[in-house]
Amino acid sequence: MSRQHYLKAGEVAFSKMDKVSAELLALTYGSLVTQLLKDKEEIESVNVQLEKMGYNIGIRLVDEFLAKSGIGPCQDFRDTAEVIAKVALKMFLNVTADVTGWNSDLTACTLVLHDNPLNEFVELPASMAGLKYGELICGVIRGGLEQVHMRVSCTFVKDVLKGDDTSEIALEFKEILKEEFVDEDE
Amino acid sequence: MSRQHYLKAGEVAFSKMDKVSAELLALTYGSLVTQLLKDKEEIESVNVQLEKMGYNIGIRLVDEFLAKSGIGPCQDFRDTAEVIAKVALKMFLNVTADVTGWNSDLTACTLVLHDNPLNEFVELPASMAGLKYGELICGVIRGGLEQVHMRVSCTFVKDVLKGDDTSEIALEFKEILKEEFVDEDE
Repeated sequence: MSRQHYLKAGEVAFSKMDKVSAELLALTYGSLVTQLLKDKEEIESVNVQLEKMGYNIGIRLVDEFLAKSGIGPCQDFRDTAEVIAKVALKMFLNVTADVTGWNSDLTACTLVLHDNPLNEFVELPASMAGLKYGELICGVIRGGLEQVHMRVSCTFVKDVLKGDDTSEIALEFKEILKEEFVDEDE
Repeated sequence: MSRQHYLKAGEVAFSKMDKVSAELLALTYGSLVTQLLKDKEEIESVNVQLEKMGYNIGIRLVDEFLAKSGIGPCQDFRDTAEVIAKVALKMFLNVTADVTGWNSDLTACTLVLHDNPLNEFVELPASMAGLKYGELICGVIRGGLEQVHMRVSCTFVKDVLKGDDTSEIALEFKEILKEEFVDEDE
């Protein structure tokens, strides 16, 4: 389906959601990151933990997405990436992204975020250059996709918080997961 | 001013806010509480830490409140409690509360929450009976009021998560804080 169609679907889906102030989310998320920075010795462990937390959130949010987005099965990974960029990000974070930088196999692309509400109020000191502040979002994408049997890798590669011009998430398709059927008689 | 007036002011203020999905806030907050439960040995320390984090958030959010709520100085503490219940809670959490149970001095009351979006997806096991799950909200109220020179105490006293009929926050006025003027010549 067209980008225009997905943009519209994202608007409609967001209108159906219960909402709270973005500032409250930003500051609550800031408390979480600060707590992890206190707990962990290595910044890389904070990135890993944020991604894991996001993964667990994505597993829960996917039901909400399937119920309220009105989006059916995607035709291919390009389609999937557009749905994440225009519908899923809109529905939960109220932002959209451009999908760019496809590789020749169409298995890897970049999501260029138009905005990131989690960054509100945040300034990273130079000592935090290794922190992937919004990495929870990447975990949410990975967790959500895994629930629909698609394994991906997903991580921040640029961030305006670090002085980059844009905030960019690298998204790469890994494999389709087989559904496991459990025979209850065995 | 009347409750009706404040309800309307709350609606208008909320309409001006940037918004995100309430589910995303609920799950992000859940990650924060879970992390603190892992870090701290005593549940009471988790309550204290959540309240402190909320306090720091309240200090930041009060500017947003003053800028967008259109609410001027309150006449008395009854007025303050109504503004919290009908305008501030609405503006950030998209809920309102009833103000009840005033003491005879009109210095202490109870906020009965009509809903608590932080509770979404949450089930507390019996071992967590001591946890004040939403205590961050109480900290936000205390921090916000302290920025306008009012010291209060604020804590959850009932919670539907623990099987109570309602979720209730006890709010008590302590003192008006004097503004400290620093003479830069000294």
